Amino acid sequence: MMFTNEIESFLEEDLGYNDISCTLVPEKVVHAIIFTKEDCTLAGLDVAKAFFDYFGLQYSTDRCNGDRLSKDDVIFFLHGSSHSVLRTERIVLNFLGHLCGIATNTRRCVDIARQYSDVRIACTRKTTPGLRKYEKMAVIAGGGDPHRFDLSDTIMIKDNHVKLMGIEGAIMSAGKKASFTQKVEVEVESSEDALRAAKAGVDIIMLDNMDPGEVIDTLGLLKSSSVPGPMIIEVSGGINAGNLEEYAKTGVDVISMGSLIHGSRWIDVSLEIMK
Amino acid sequence: MMFTNEIESFLEEDLGYNDISCTLVPEKVVHAIIFTKEDCTLAGLDVAKAFFDYFGLQYSTDRCNGDRLSKDDVIFFLHGSSHSVLRTERIVLNFLGHLCGIATNTRRCVDIARQYSDVRIACTRKTTPGLRKYEKMAVIAGGGDPHRFDLSDTIMIKDNHVKLMGIEGAIMSAGKKASFTQKVEVEVESSEDALRAAKAGVDIIMLDNMDPGEVIDTLGLLKSSSVPGPMIIEVSGGINAGNLEEYAKTGVDVISMGSLIHGSRWIDVSLEIMK
Amino acid sequence: MMFTNEIESFLEEDLGYNDISCTLVPEKVVHAIIFTKEDCTLAGLDVAKAFFDYFGLQYSTDRCNGDRLSKDDVIFFLHGSSHSVLRTERIVLNFLGHLCGIATNTRRCVDIARQYSDVRIACTRKTTPGLRKYEKMAVIAGGGDPHRFDLSDTIMIKDNHVKLMGIEGAIMSAGKKASFTQKVEVEVESSEDALRAAKAGVDIIMLDNMDPGEVIDTLGLLKSSSVPGPMIIEVSGGINAGNLEEYAKTGVDVISMGSLIHGSRWIDVSLEIMK
Amino acid sequence: MMFTNEIESFLEEDLGYNDISCTLVPEKVVHAIIFTKEDCTLAGLDVAKAFFDYFGLQYSTDRCNGDRLSKDDVIFFLHGSSHSVLRTERIVLNFLGHLCGIATNTRRCVDIARQYSDVRIACTRKTTPGLRKYEKMAVIAGGGDPHRFDLSDTIMIKDNHVKLMGIEGAIMSAGKKASFTQKVEVEVESSEDALRAAKAGVDIIMLDNMDPGEVIDTLGLLKSSSVPGPMIIEVSGGINAGNLEEYAKTGVDVISMGSLIHGSRWIDVSLEIMK
Amino acid sequence: MMFTNEIESFLEEDLGYNDISCTLVPEKVVHAIIFTKEDCTLAGLDVAKAFFDYFGLQYSTDRCNGDRLSKDDVIFFLHGSSHSVLRTERIVLNFLGHLCGIATNTRRCVDIARQYSDVRIACTRKTTPGLRKYEKMAVIAGGGDPHRFDLSDTIMIKDNHVKLMGIEGAIMSAGKKASFTQKVEVEVESSEDALRAAKAGVDIIMLDNMDPGEVIDTLGLLKSSSVPGPMIIEVSGGINAGNLEEYAKTGVDVISMGSLIHGSRWIDVSLEIMK
Amino acid sequence: MMFTNEIESFLEEDLGYNDISCTLVPEKVVHAIIFTKEDCTLAGLDVAKAFFDYFGLQYSTDRCNGDRLSKDDVIFFLHGSSHSVLRTERIVLNFLGHLCGIATNTRRCVDIARQYSDVRIACTRKTTPGLRKYEKMAVIAGGGDPHRFDLSDTIMIKDNHVKLMGIEGAIMSAGKKASFTQKVEVEVESSEDALRAAKAGVDIIMLDNMDPGEVIDTLGLLKSSSVPGPMIIEVSGGINAGNLEEYAKTGVDVISMGSLIHGSRWIDVSLEIMK
Repeated sequence: MMFTNEIESFLEEDLGYNDISCTLVPEKVVHAIIFTKEDCTLAGLDVAKAFFDYFGLQYSTDRCNGDRLSKDDVIFFLHGSSHSVLRTERIVLNFLGHLCGIATNTRRCVDIARQYSDVRIACTRKTTPGLRKYEKMAVIAGGGDPHRFDLSDTIMIKDNHVKLMGIEGAIMSAGKKASFTQKVEVEVESSEDALRAAKAGVDIIMLDNMDPGEVIDTLGLLKSSSVPGPMIIEVSGGINAGNLEEYAKTGVDVISMGSLIHGSRWIDVSLEIMK
Repeated sequence: MMFTNEIESFLEEDLGYNDISCTLVPEKVVHAIIFTKEDCTLAGLDVAKAFFDYFGLQYSTDRCNGDRLSKDDVIFFLHGSSHSVLRTERIVLNFLGHLCGIATNTRRCVDIARQYSDVRIACTRKTTPGLRKYEKMAVIAGGGDPHRFDLSDTIMIKDNHVKLMGIEGAIMSAGKKASFTQKVEVEVESSEDALRAAKAGVDIIMLDNMDPGEVIDTLGLLKSSSVPGPMIIEVSGGINAGNLEEYAKTGVDVISMGSLIHGSRWIDVSLEIMK
Repeated sequence: MMFTNEIESFLEEDLGYNDISCTLVPEKVVHAIIFTKEDCTLAGLDVAKAFFDYFGLQYSTDRCNGDRLSKDDVIFFLHGSSHSVLRTERIVLNFLGHLCGIATNTRRCVDIARQYSDVRIACTRKTTPGLRKYEKMAVIAGGGDPHRFDLSDTIMIKDNHVKLMGIEGAIMSAGKKASFTQKVEVEVESSEDALRAAKAGVDIIMLDNMDPGEVIDTLGLLKSSSVPGPMIIEVSGGINAGNLEEYAKTGVDVISMGSLIHGSRWIDVSLEIMK
Repeated sequence: MMFTNEIESFLEEDLGYNDISCTLVPEKVVHAIIFTKEDCTLAGLDVAKAFFDYFGLQYSTDRCNGDRLSKDDVIFFLHGSSHSVLRTERIVLNFLGHLCGIATNTRRCVDIARQYSDVRIACTRKTTPGLRKYEKMAVIAGGGDPHRFDLSDTIMIKDNHVKLMGIEGAIMSAGKKASFTQKVEVEVESSEDALRAAKAGVDIIMLDNMDPGEVIDTLGLLKSSSVPGPMIIEVSGGINAGNLEEYAKTGVDVISMGSLIHGSRWIDVSLEIMK
Repeated sequence: MMFTNEIESFLEEDLGYNDISCTLVPEKVVHAIIFTKEDCTLAGLDVAKAFFDYFGLQYSTDRCNGDRLSKDDVIFFLHGSSHSVLRTERIVLNFLGHLCGIATNTRRCVDIARQYSDVRIACTRKTTPGLRKYEKMAVIAGGGDPHRFDLSDTIMIKDNHVKLMGIEGAIMSAGKKASFTQKVEVEVESSEDALRAAKAGVDIIMLDNMDPGEVIDTLGLLKSSSVPGPMIIEVSGGINAGNLEEYAKTGVDVISMGSLIHGSRWIDVSLEIMK
Repeated sequence: MMFTNEIESFLEEDLGYNDISCTLVPEKVVHAIIFTKEDCTLAGLDVAKAFFDYFGLQYSTDRCNGDRLSKDDVIFFLHGSSHSVLRTERIVLNFLGHLCGIATNTRRCVDIARQYSDVRIACTRKTTPGLRKYEKMAVIAGGGDPHRFDLSDTIMIKDNHVKLMGIEGAIMSAGKKASFTQKVEVEVESSEDALRAAKAGVDIIMLDNMDPGEVIDTLGLLKSSSVPGPMIIEVSGGINAGNLEEYAKTGVDVISMGSLIHGSRWIDVSLEIMK
């Protein structure tokens, strides 16, 4: 759900104090459609609805987040005040264009990976400032996994922590500080470090910047050693639509890609007032 | 400049209530660098500085917004509290990655166009919700023009206005409502409409979705008619790096491209703590 | 339009945590009118409506912003919860009193000037902190021009800029930094500087603190020189209802007066609950 | 004191996203003075300082709120970043102009009244929306009394309450609901009602819209009746600088005047950058 | 009343960005009741209603703030969206549990005191940060007095003021600075100081940390001296349910107890979805 | 860390617009101490520091959150502006009193439990509205576990979910929706349901409202069945300091108690200005 203060803070950016551009036209009831100009996976429906509700615009739709749309598919039928339609147009299209872009990009990667395994495709904390929750929901709409939300969520031990404390030191410290409701993840760059992490006891190991061959070797090493319990193995670093296939074949549990979000481009979505 | 409440609202998204991930490491003074992993045009320096100042981190840099950087160029030397460096890392890199992406994309388009004319390359109101001012400043850093900021800025008569009021009606109404400090722009889709707009009297005419040939014809038509005064001609719609060259040759004053912003991808910028 | 967070932030100032004064009376449906106790030009209707809507009060009115009202004219018929009427009373009357005061003051000046020419009467950035957008809309309601809204709107080169950079230097720098959607204005204090500015190329020249004779001379000098294009000439500084007539006769395009806003006094508007 | 979020919300109104007007000039250290162009009573010093502190500008002053200044008196010596001086100029001058206007108006009324008695001159809740606390402090600077701050402060029974509940009913209800830390005030329009209120027991009686003769009669009636305790008598309604003298002579304790605030006009305060 | 921005800021704390816990269940209309699991005095009804209204939940209740409830009494019947019921559950129960706890604690103390006199039982400024207005309203619901609201309300001279200025000095200074609408209270720790304060002239004297015997002596001393006017005597410091009786018998006007709020414990209130 | 906007929003509640009470005293440098009047476990140090920093007060302390203090132990030595000390006093003491109360209560429970096992003592989402993050940090300071933070954190299947979907249905649905970084917890009320949940596969099982005997039986049943993996067993419902011992002996992993927070009472912490 979207709070009134969020809606207003986004609107404020676009309206200014005297939107002559919107109020030029006579105030009357108009009908309009919002449709996509290219194939895409849908996201941001609830955001759009929140803006329509705020302005008292009537709408109907038979789409859901995650739906695959074809060029020219209508997303919303709208009717209501001409001024409200014009005031709502740009902000809603900007959200839909951006979020459908992310969902579509995610969907494409998930589809590639699904050919080989049921590996999860996850995003990261590389999100556009101020829009993380919307972008992570778009990843979910595209079939992806949102990964941890912020620094207070799942505890993640990264290269800089290891540099300052050593793997075992960092894991032990994390174990002491973690709530029983949290998972602990560690990022490693070599098979040996993966094994050390597994022995020290973590919930998730992230193999960073390894090529597919190294990933396979590391999985083998972990399996052959007698480290206990179900552990989740994630790979990350330099993975894109081009090489995703190779990683999907390795048997890892999760592939995380910052580019799901920051490498996506907007879908062309448009609003048309009907005569 | 960036307000404290903006800084905090961006930080809040990433920190959460108990950032164990940052506070695992001992609190001590560390040195770090921020550098680019690929060639780019720099933007967002002031945003990064605002976050460093907020956390009391010391920094030095000899770069300016708009500088062209090469792979591995250092942007900032940092030193200060290890916890503050870790807390500031992701938000600063997210801003730099996103904004340098826009500046780099803009710079590339400006460079292409500059080979043929001194046409301005402008962005639009297709900006990421909540980030318009940062993104428009990144376009400026890349050598582009920010275009109007919001609906209360320059008055813009678009297709939906024309549909409801006719060209002359809309222009006359805008002329009455506009402050003498504002320009009035009208969007047209044919040569005849451009001429009608010019005769009705506007400051800027935007030729929407015309191919380069039509643009040249329209410019000719306007020149041969005796409409008064200096008028700015802008083209927009479906222009990208691929066909930009053709438009740059037409002699228009401004080429506007939503894709400067929404078609850009992040530059890979990284922070490394020095041992 | 007025955002919920604006409405609430204004209300918060007057309500406090336990408004016994309002809740003394039994909660029941009451009828009330809002009327003016003196002749005035109306402004702030939409602000009043926003507060009524917020509290769920029913209202009707057949007035528009800009209407000329006579003493005792009713502005609103209200009915709804007695508590809500009492809670809304002071804030709505404070807005109406203040904004009608500005509109009335503006209307008077516009009427004076209209006897001699169609010169625009504009306000300035001398506005009450926090209320600029409401006050500029009240100036518009009174028939005036809102002038530029803030420092990022029209670029204005003032005495302090000229002192630090020279006229030509400042104009050249502004020209480089301005978007094609923005106008550039320069403030000058002598005929020669006006001519220098015109030659350097600006959209608007503001003649500061000139008496009507100097204004006429400067207009003549500009006309006789061969500077190109349509340029808007504005006068400002020490102009009031008393000497406005003299300036209106000079033939300038715009007369700007800070006192439209800061020299206005409130109109006496009152709310009466009907037995 | 003034909160960062208040400072920023006032600044936001004037700066916009790209204040070219301020950043045209080279960034360097400049000296400036703020001085008054007319005689006045000073208010708003602390507000001005809060803005200077926010921007890191150095300042010195030997003035205090409430000081009587003569034309050309310097209020502040400033030095610091040229950009910061330009960014701070308008908002600080707008505050000083507005608040000194109120203090000066108040001072004048207090001086008139002081010739005849030590009656307090008070303002009301007729304040500019969003600025009540600043305006009430300006009244204090001018030697006036701020009266109650909001609806949850002193309980005030007004005509609309009496109309709905009767005087005694309203006073009894207020007495039950009031905290022992609050005073209860009642507004009456006749001598008899004043007496009824006094008998019912209140802390303050406000005589509304009475002429000086009626005020004297009412005071006599109250004195001659045997109502207990020290009671404060306030007069209000239609009192201005012209008839203030007559009211001051009546012997009431408090004269309240909405016009202290809404009838004031700005003092002309100016900032000059020193060569 | 409760503002939208308050409602949202409380909700934000509990919802997070993707409340899977709430949205697991199918979205459908459900019925639910809110009831108390122990005897209590009711407070916070209006807060609960504000959250229900925000979510569009229907509710009915025949309770009022201040009602005495028995174990298992239903407070609200609710029906509406299953997701909204789950989203609203915890925040509403947390408010009701906390506020009913305060009202119940207050009621108990008021009942004890009422056996001996009509002394007022008041809370203090020892309130949970961010919740003062809700907690003071809960004290009122329990039959208590809210005392002053904040530092700008009634002027209170405390030990630290006396230490720095002396009793008479502080009272004289307060008298000069106080509005005629404000009361002045002084805190003293001995009979002599009480007498000095009474002579200097204040509205309220607070006897701090005196045992009941000292209180009686001080009241006697004040009565026997010829200090004028009705003065309110308050006792405070170390008073609790155990020794309250002794203080109630002394004949003071007000007994204030921080523990009304900070010594209360939550009432167990529960929400049950009906099959 | 605490944001400026949080600090200011807490301060705003207590200061009001004209805190005469604080500014009565001469503005000068004073020394003060903050000390505890009873034995306690310390929490809220960082909150207090944030307020001191905001006001520019100097402080020193050799305490850490979690320290066990004895009656009269000094927590802070302060020096700085007398006005700032008075403005900061109440809000800092309110935070320290409340948070030390929670930490002390938690510490006592943890100490009881530690005699029998290393079971974790956790709080719940029953927290004071607006203060969750501060209260959870106080639980950590007292040696407790903060449990999940909000509805978007760990997924928790409660009675109302089970009622609407069945145990297996709810767990399956949660499994599909959960990120790989999240744990899934289910609340059950019988041994059989615990076993069903374990078989369906969850990370944490919470035994709700079971007496210690039932808990032991359920643990036995789970151990004897061949459900895989390490599962965390939590007990909750009606546990308090009185019966905690019995639960600690059962061998469960976590005991959660809402009363850690809502059953705590404030520690008496005081500020004294030194002569």
